[in-house]
Amino acid sequence: MTDASLTAQTIDRSDEDYALDPALIDGVLFALDTSDKTGLQHLLDPLHAADVADLLEQVSSADRERLIRAIGRDLEGETLPELEESVRDEVLGLVDDDILAEAVKDLDSDDVVYLIEDMDGPARAKFLNALEDEDRFIVQQSLNYPDESAGRMMKREVVTAPPFWNVGQMIDFMRDADDLPDPFYDVIVTDPMMKPVGTIPLSRIMGARRPVLLSDIMDKDFRAIPVLQDEEEVAYAFSQYHLVSAPVIDDDGRLVGVITIDDAVEAMEEEAEEDLLRLAGLGDESLADKVWRTTRKRFPWLGVNLVTSILASIVISQFEDVIAAYVALAVLLPIVASMGGNAGTQTLTVAVRALATKDLTAANMWRVILRETLVGLGNGLVFAVLIGVVGYVWFGDVLLGVVLALAMVANLLVAGMAGILIPLGLEKAGADPALASGAFVTTVTDVVGFFAFLGLAATILI
Amino acid sequence: MTDASLTAQTIDRSDEDYALDPALIDGVLFALDTSDKTGLQHLLDPLHAADVADLLEQVSSADRERLIRAIGRDLEGETLPELEESVRDEVLGLVDDDILAEAVKDLDSDDVVYLIEDMDGPARAKFLNALEDEDRFIVQQSLNYPDESAGRMMKREVVTAPPFWNVGQMIDFMRDADDLPDPFYDVIVTDPMMKPVGTIPLSRIMGARRPVLLSDIMDKDFRAIPVLQDEEEVAYAFSQYHLVSAPVIDDDGRLVGVITIDDAVEAMEEEAEEDLLRLAGLGDESLADKVWRTTRKRFPWLGVNLVTSILASIVISQFEDVIAAYVALAVLLPIVASMGGNAGTQTLTVAVRALATKDLTAANMWRVILRETLVGLGNGLVFAVLIGVVGYVWFGDVLLGVVLALAMVANLLVAGMAGILIPLGLEKAGADPALASGAFVTTVTDVVGFFAFLGLAATILI
Repeated sequence: MTDASLTAQTIDRSDEDYALDPALIDGVLFALDTSDKTGLQHLLDPLHAADVADLLEQVSSADRERLIRAIGRDLEGETLPELEESVRDEVLGLVDDDILAEAVKDLDSDDVVYLIEDMDGPARAKFLNALEDEDRFIVQQSLNYPDESAGRMMKREVVTAPPFWNVGQMIDFMRDADDLPDPFYDVIVTDPMMKPVGTIPLSRIMGARRPVLLSDIMDKDFRAIPVLQDEEEVAYAFSQYHLVSAPVIDDDGRLVGVITIDDAVEAMEEEAEEDLLRLAGLGDESLADKVWRTTRKRFPWLGVNLVTSILASIVISQFEDVIAAYVALAVLLPIVASMGGNAGTQTLTVAVRALATKDLTAANMWRVILRETLVGLGNGLVFAVLIGVVGYVWFGDVLLGVVLALAMVANLLVAGMAGILIPLGLEKAGADPALASGAFVTTVTDVVGFFAFLGLAATILI
Repeated sequence: MTDASLTAQTIDRSDEDYALDPALIDGVLFALDTSDKTGLQHLLDPLHAADVADLLEQVSSADRERLIRAIGRDLEGETLPELEESVRDEVLGLVDDDILAEAVKDLDSDDVVYLIEDMDGPARAKFLNALEDEDRFIVQQSLNYPDESAGRMMKREVVTAPPFWNVGQMIDFMRDADDLPDPFYDVIVTDPMMKPVGTIPLSRIMGARRPVLLSDIMDKDFRAIPVLQDEEEVAYAFSQYHLVSAPVIDDDGRLVGVITIDDAVEAMEEEAEEDLLRLAGLGDESLADKVWRTTRKRFPWLGVNLVTSILASIVISQFEDVIAAYVALAVLLPIVASMGGNAGTQTLTVAVRALATKDLTAANMWRVILRETLVGLGNGLVFAVLIGVVGYVWFGDVLLGVVLALAMVANLLVAGMAGILIPLGLEKAGADPALASGAFVTTVTDVVGFFAFLGLAATILI
């Protein structure tokens, strides 16, 4: 695809990486060691708040403390919402009250809400005290909405206009306003009851002449987000409909705020991360968590897995005499289990992803179930031949090959069905399909795999 | 967190779901069955292009064909980029050339590029012919950039201005322009060589008075995206720095286009999906793929898994005489393997995610490796006690319990180390850590687990 001129201008890809430069981190630590305030400032000043947050996350806990003390009053409020929770708690514990008050003064209300929603009482009170009265009121109102709802994500700072204004009036209004959100993307046109009746992207106002009425250029079929909507649904709406901002309305259809794409992106990434981690049996853990905390968080899933693997072992124990007579069976058992587990995980992952993106619905459910069953059968047949030959060649026993082959077909067939039916069942039951599917699916494939393999062996070989 | 007034106004969550209504799909199919053109139009007209695309994806292949024929000239160009690849190919094959030409006329250049970049020669030629000359030239230029680069993601339609213009001149220019992108979010200020020197969000221009110079209100420390940058890096920059649009520059620093958040969100979701699927041993498959295609796509990973599980079996076969003397070992083998595999997958998933978000870097690498090793040791000790007791109670043999316990510690310790070292090694070697880690990690845990368990059994029990 690349033509000659492009090949010639190909540039060093390493220049394009946004990861924090390790040399920068070393420089910061050196400046700390040598108490070089000017050098430190010189290194930190050009950094975006998100990069300062990454820096704080990636140094050790002791260095973090030194760094926060050295930054002192230069701490930017924007850095705080960029920090992951465990590091943020640590940093907030280190910052003096008056520095905090100064730092958070300029944050948008949605960022403040994000910061304090997981804090306990005293920490939250300390934070709220640092705010000005008006901001504190707005933040407390947002906190009244449920966790992970649109009400928590929205900003209260909204630019509205009546439909009978013309473009000139709109522009004059914005020029005279002294606390416009910066940036914002849409003007929300509202009726006298504060119900949104249309939205206008700023670019369209810019392109229109002064006498044009707002009602003539507004989008009437905009999407308003109910204030109680779950953030997962909000993120989906932004992604599906390519929204950049959307008005948020209460039960009576009145405008209460606006959600912008940056908050939706945050929610999208959280949801994607949650699915990935849950499929691997992980809770919300962070790389900065300490050993003890991480050990505890990983324990429950391993405990579930211990129980389910004992179940599988009980199946095997029913066939002890068969194994005693035919030790090759013990050698081959892990192959059957491993193939079933992997095939089941493949189907499961596809199903969990498709449910998250709403691509798997009542309309195509049966078609997908049939497809996964047939795919399981198809790969089961292919691998039956392969493993049958391996078993025969390895142990010189045709019947052992036959047993392996039949067990493989049964196992991959069941893996395909379990991989699709279990997440669908969990979704129907109102549970997160990513949460528990892995445990269920591998239990099914292990139990079925061992039972099929050893049961067939007992019948055919002995 | 919910106060009384909110509990009272809690609304039916099912209203808030953006998934396609199954009743709508049924209605569309019924309208097709009864050749009810008006009814069909009535159902389809209010739908967003993304929802029409979902509808096309979720019906069967035969219904898809009927639906496309029935939609005919009403096909909106915006629907096409929303379709997943296999369905899109199918739909494009069904659409007449002149309908296609009409439909794609109003698409932005980036959408056209996205549509045709994966097409083969004849399909691409058919598509390019449907474009107007000027659009075709722009699209062909973009196609000269490498696949998955910023050059492929960007739009060519950009609003620029010189720094010496004032706000009044800028607004007048936009009012007079008759083909402004709708919407756009920033004006890009360029020097006479077309190098960007600043960006101004539209909201800031709106809030400024006419005589204010653009150079006085522009952001000078904006982020310009190199045109050859990989789309994964572009998505990261948008997410990390909360960008909504960013200028794209060539090697000489000249402006060549602009990337907007909708395209970055698309890339973010693709990257997240890729990691999720690759960890489960899946390529880029879609729910609309046919059985045969899916079977073939899942085959390679299962094949790798067959080979690695045979490796593990070979380890077991070295201990056939031990198992023959002590069949309980065969019963307990899957527990050891399963626990190691799960613990390894937990660590692996955390590592892959942290590498993708650039939270795991040279600065904290050794700290994270140490942490994962200690977590493996910690959970190894806890589960050693548990499984040791189970083994003793089940088989009434203290020494068997001891063997199980020691094997568990060894296995979970190695699982933790393999789970972090293997993805780090792959990343260092320039490979995608998500791609092959699963196979490596479970092979290591299986081999180590079986060797430790059976080796200890041979030493202690016999």
